[in-house]
Amino acid sequence: MKRLYLIGMGPGGPEYLTIQAIETLKRVDVFFMLEKEGRGKDELLRMRHDILQRYLGDSDYRVVTAISPERRMLPDGYRETVRAWHDTKRQLFARLIDEELQDGQSGALLLWGDPSLYDQTVTMIAELVDASDGALEFEIIPGITSVQVLTAKHKIPLNRVGESITITTGRHVEHCDPAEIHNAVVMLDYNASFQRFTGQDMDVYWGGYLGCPDEVLVSGPVDDVLDELLSTKARVREEKGWLLDIYLLRRRLDEGD
Amino acid sequence: MKRLYLIGMGPGGPEYLTIQAIETLKRVDVFFMLEKEGRGKDELLRMRHDILQRYLGDSDYRVVTAISPERRMLPDGYRETVRAWHDTKRQLFARLIDEELQDGQSGALLLWGDPSLYDQTVTMIAELVDASDGALEFEIIPGITSVQVLTAKHKIPLNRVGESITITTGRHVEHCDPAEIHNAVVMLDYNASFQRFTGQDMDVYWGGYLGCPDEVLVSGPVDDVLDELLSTKARVREEKGWLLDIYLLRRRLDEGD
Ligand SMILES: C[S@@+](CC[C@H](N)C(=O)[O-])C[C@H]1O[C@@H](n2cnc3c(N)ncnc32)[C@H](O)[C@@H]1O
Ligand SMILES: C[S@@+](CC[C@H](N)C(=O)[O-])C[C@H]1O[C@@H](n2cnc3c(N)ncnc32)[C@H](O)[C@@H]1O
Repeated sequence: MKRLYLIGMGPGGPEYLTIQAIETLKRVDVFFMLEKEGRGKDELLRMRHDILQRYLGDSDYRVVTAISPERRMLPDGYRETVRAWHDTKRQLFARLIDEELQDGQSGALLLWGDPSLYDQTVTMIAELVDASDGALEFEIIPGITSVQVLTAKHKIPLNRVGESITITTGRHVEHCDPAEIHNAVVMLDYNASFQRFTGQDMDVYWGGYLGCPDEVLVSGPVDDVLDELLSTKARVREEKGWLLDIYLLRRRLDEGD
Repeated sequence: MKRLYLIGMGPGGPEYLTIQAIETLKRVDVFFMLEKEGRGKDELLRMRHDILQRYLGDSDYRVVTAISPERRMLPDGYRETVRAWHDTKRQLFARLIDEELQDGQSGALLLWGDPSLYDQTVTMIAELVDASDGALEFEIIPGITSVQVLTAKHKIPLNRVGESITITTGRHVEHCDPAEIHNAVVMLDYNASFQRFTGQDMDVYWGGYLGCPDEVLVSGPVDDVLDELLSTKARVREEKGWLLDIYLLRRRLDEGD
């Protein structure tokens, strides 16, 4: 039997790990580190190494690093693109578990934020476990999400009294009817889709590199902070070469609401 | 100057605290513990004491316990009820900070799960800080939510590829059009509103007392597990006298989706 832990590492800094995550690290023989080729790669890998260094010191563990497959746009559309990409990624996991993990050993993946939030590793590993006929088991260790650091740093609640919360993607917000958005967290936005919400009594709470040394925050009415937000994004992306950002859009309520 | 920390304690067990939370505990002079009168009160207070015992041992700190005001239904409706309740609670916080915290000291509240999620303490304290003219500061320390423990224990992602996530209340799900729900986490449900989703190709992932010693899980198609779910809820509520539960409703996709 082999065992795999999917460990939520929080949004960057080692102080976001839970005690449960740290106790789990100590049971791991092999850490698999997958990163996409690209400008943030070395920094993102270094944060994972810092976590291991801080909590495991010089104890006995092995690190296997692999390049995570790129998502290649296929002519058959978005769903087919994602399906093919997931197939390639699942095959990579299968090969790593097969070749780098021995029977009786435990492997782990340090997943950014929480493993459940916009990360399909859980699904891929569950499929491998189902197909393994009992030879592979897995466990998930929750981690702090970028959503929680966003609200903590802006000192706001995620919802007002009785209100629902939506967590969605830039892809969705770019095309949806703006009137449908009342209180929504937007992740994976590559086109600054908050621009669609001017003139609508909407506030935005934005954060880049949350929980990392370069953290940056902007907030206010969309109408007032739009220019500052666009120029901040352009500047930090230029300086570092990559950007992780997230924001909450919130429609102001009438006093009577 | 006085300082207040709102610390996310996770959903129960001390292993869910982050290193950041533990480092913050060590800077606190006075812990304020507020619990509602009722059957779970002693157990919920004990979990907080266990956390302090485990991470602070016999070091020097003070605990001030107070009864959290009940929400009393007012004839003027839900919003007025909540407004009056929040006023009373904010006044209690103001009095505790005034009488029990000295200038230069730090106080803390250990908040269940994450401070931002269906918890208006953040808003109340922000109002006190705004009114304090610089005499009071506060900081929020994120914690693991019951949502994350729910998905971790069921080994599922919070969303399928590209899908949005809704987090909402039993109050909403009880009255909304069931067709509007595709992938939603339901909290604060006192009326087992998942009953409204039979005959609709809907799966449910339910968890009670997540992250606590009495944790219990039920999952499957709503049509198949409805009876088991209702009887499990009735049994555990009877045994313990109180219940904290949460669930995810997920509409099955056609193969073509
Ligand atoms: C593939 S998703 C993974 C989210 C992750 N599982 C979590 O719990 O935060 C990546 C997206 O998360 C958001 N994100 C993750 N880490 C962030 C950070 N440190 N600061 C700002 N946004 C972040 C960004 O919107 C990014 O596009
Ligand atoms: C007032 S809300 C606070 C939520 C909390 N801030 C969090 O992050 O989980 C209380 C609701 O959270 C859910 N909940 C909190 N802790 C739970 C637990 N340990 N197990 C199951 N549900 C829980 C229940 O739906 C409950 O009605």
